[in-house]
Amino acid sequence: MQNKHHLVVVGGGFGGLSLVQALRKTDIDITLVDKRNHHLFQPLLYQVATGGLSPANISTPLRELFRKQINCRVVMDEMVDLDLTTRQILLGDKKLPYDTLVIAAGATNSYFGNDQWATHAVGLKSIEEATEIRARVLSAFERAELSTDEAEINRLLTFVVIGGGPTGVEMAGAISELSHHTLKGDFRKIDATKARILLVEGSDRLLAAFEPTSSARALHSLEKMGVEVWTKSRVKEIHPDHIVVDHQGSLQKIYAGAIVWGAGVKGNTIGAKVAAACGVTVDRGGRIPVLPDLSVANHPDIYVIGDIAAAPMEEGKFVPGLAPAAMQMGEFVARKLKSRLVGAKDPGNFRYVNKGNMATIGRAQAVVELPFPKINFGGYLAWLAWLFVHINYLIMFQNRLLVMLQWSWTYFTRNRSALLITHPREEDMKPVVGAVSQPPTV
Amino acid sequence: MQNKHHLVVVGGGFGGLSLVQALRKTDIDITLVDKRNHHLFQPLLYQVATGGLSPANISTPLRELFRKQINCRVVMDEMVDLDLTTRQILLGDKKLPYDTLVIAAGATNSYFGNDQWATHAVGLKSIEEATEIRARVLSAFERAELSTDEAEINRLLTFVVIGGGPTGVEMAGAISELSHHTLKGDFRKIDATKARILLVEGSDRLLAAFEPTSSARALHSLEKMGVEVWTKSRVKEIHPDHIVVDHQGSLQKIYAGAIVWGAGVKGNTIGAKVAAACGVTVDRGGRIPVLPDLSVANHPDIYVIGDIAAAPMEEGKFVPGLAPAAMQMGEFVARKLKSRLVGAKDPGNFRYVNKGNMATIGRAQAVVELPFPKINFGGYLAWLAWLFVHINYLIMFQNRLLVMLQWSWTYFTRNRSALLITHPREEDMKPVVGAVSQPPTV
Repeated sequence: MQNKHHLVVVGGGFGGLSLVQALRKTDIDITLVDKRNHHLFQPLLYQVATGGLSPANISTPLRELFRKQINCRVVMDEMVDLDLTTRQILLGDKKLPYDTLVIAAGATNSYFGNDQWATHAVGLKSIEEATEIRARVLSAFERAELSTDEAEINRLLTFVVIGGGPTGVEMAGAISELSHHTLKGDFRKIDATKARILLVEGSDRLLAAFEPTSSARALHSLEKMGVEVWTKSRVKEIHPDHIVVDHQGSLQKIYAGAIVWGAGVKGNTIGAKVAAACGVTVDRGGRIPVLPDLSVANHPDIYVIGDIAAAPMEEGKFVPGLAPAAMQMGEFVARKLKSRLVGAKDPGNFRYVNKGNMATIGRAQAVVELPFPKINFGGYLAWLAWLFVHINYLIMFQNRLLVMLQWSWTYFTRNRSALLITHPREEDMKPVVGAVSQPPTV
Repeated sequence: MQNKHHLVVVGGGFGGLSLVQALRKTDIDITLVDKRNHHLFQPLLYQVATGGLSPANISTPLRELFRKQINCRVVMDEMVDLDLTTRQILLGDKKLPYDTLVIAAGATNSYFGNDQWATHAVGLKSIEEATEIRARVLSAFERAELSTDEAEINRLLTFVVIGGGPTGVEMAGAISELSHHTLKGDFRKIDATKARILLVEGSDRLLAAFEPTSSARALHSLEKMGVEVWTKSRVKEIHPDHIVVDHQGSLQKIYAGAIVWGAGVKGNTIGAKVAAACGVTVDRGGRIPVLPDLSVANHPDIYVIGDIAAAPMEEGKFVPGLAPAAMQMGEFVARKLKSRLVGAKDPGNFRYVNKGNMATIGRAQAVVELPFPKINFGGYLAWLAWLFVHINYLIMFQNRLLVMLQWSWTYFTRNRSALLITHPREEDMKPVVGAVSQPPTV
């Protein structure tokens, strides 16, 4: 028996999944390595963070996805290093040889050098972070209901979302939904609809990657939903109970009940090790620079795709860190491998095709930008388009009809079915500011 | 305005919920205190532990349940002590006065004095424990797939369930389903259907609270499902990777990939504080002794209901720690309060009405015992009865139609939709037995 070509793919996100699926009819032996046992549909993670969906609704076990793809083996483990001389990756106490290696390890939150902020301002990249945000937001309402100190109540009912990109806009919109509709009438002392939701953005507009008209639409929609938007506002400090913001030149201290981080991501840490081994350097965003064919310079057997790749486009720009881009990269590398191994046509260099850009803002509000013909639109129609695209992706997976039912339920009743506080941490149960010397009567 | 009577209910389980709901049309001011923000449908927790349902499917926020019951206020906090002189309960840094106090704080796992076992053998009383068991069981399969050491693979594919009561029987049956059907074909190296599932019971039969015919039925069903049942087997030691069992006189060492504890529960710790304050002593099961009217001796303003109550029945027996019993106690105390406060008829002493007993074993297998007429039956019909009773309870809650759909899906496809490993702990990712000096190639 001839030894088959062994492809190792590190990461089961959008990029890794597309690559492996595109190679299903080939003779290539594939090992998909992921430290998680599931593919996560990250675009809906904000729904988990705000109690609209359960973690399992947006996750599919990788083994289930590849049960029938017999040329793919799934390994749940974490890649910790790379050995170029023996062509092996290191997985904790094991090692795994490869003929071709594809790094698709994705991104994590970036706090721009202020890693101590991570404890106070939770990002939104994993299920654990989403359920942690959910617990913090819901616990803030609970603690406000119990408090007798007006300043403390005002603090607890202030929610700060940092970063005005798609994640921040979605989170701010969803927290507004939660406080103004879902929790309305749930409390006896506080008025949940009085919650203050503050979205802080460093640049001069929301959704900076979109057209200015879309930014204006998002701003208008959010303000109608009761979200306060601060642009040209840079976060200077983040503490457990407050942040300090340079708000258009003046320093402001904002006390908050929960702080959400949506301001930046960077390539996962394995990126730096891979880059070092290959003699290149990750960029400021922790991304590995690749050639136009997505391979690493001088290492034609190593490709990098998705959010962890710094892939050049025209005019010095890079392929954006979006799910469709990661999927296109995965499909491209699949074609590349087919051309190298079974003599299919060489696809040349990777070209990112922008099929449009969309962001949801809240219930029945979104913005959509299409490139050909160049059209921007917002409102209900945009939301339907957003929904259609997401349904379309979700139904690729088994069992996702239930998610749609769940979602329809949430949409029509404004009820959220997953308002759970799990793993409440000790410190979340106690007031952060001040100490009450005499126990008040509640 | 006349001061209304203030009832404080501690615990939002079956007992507390029934009590508060039964008082919805009264003039009594109710405060429901729970350290969790949700009511948990514990009878289905084993489905969460084995990936069939999501935590949110079996939990309902207490605030949602009582949104429209305007005489009820929900307080998310933990009762830590009781001050009889001022008639207040202490909640961390706050205190809460009561006119009548009902303790319905439920039960937790009991390791019979071996509290160090809790880390290695997880019980099944909370959502966190259920998702921890889920992660451990699924991680054991993942690690077995990666291992090259046959002894280690055999260990990882051995699942030990301790305790042959309803919880243990359900868990053993569900893990068998998982390995023999759900995960079949998911792995490339190991054969998930070869997993060994061992159910260890101290007494001479399973389901000791049931009739011997039901025990025999459960044993037969489990053995047909591939579960190994050891009766008259007492656990002597529990370690991270093995247990030591006195199996009918001979000491056996069983290496296991995951160990589940279903052998015993005891009243929550607040029980001892309440008992001490009231001048009584909790029994060996941590339960507070009560008078036949469920009040504490010499404290007619303090009632105890549900699993934390040692409520006398005829012949020195106590009301069993079952959901229906807790609900009946809640309804009884509601009638008692109505009689005391609004002159309704005094219900006298509490009498537990046994409406039957049921336990599910696996897919389409259960045992049911009805008292009047005295009928025992098993098999598919019993499972339908079990399903009907559980559906009947679940539809009391909004949104539960989705759970039924989810469940039907699981039933017909044998797919489990929530096979997530979340919060994988560092030590779960590493082999427990031995150390591999040379990294093997996987």
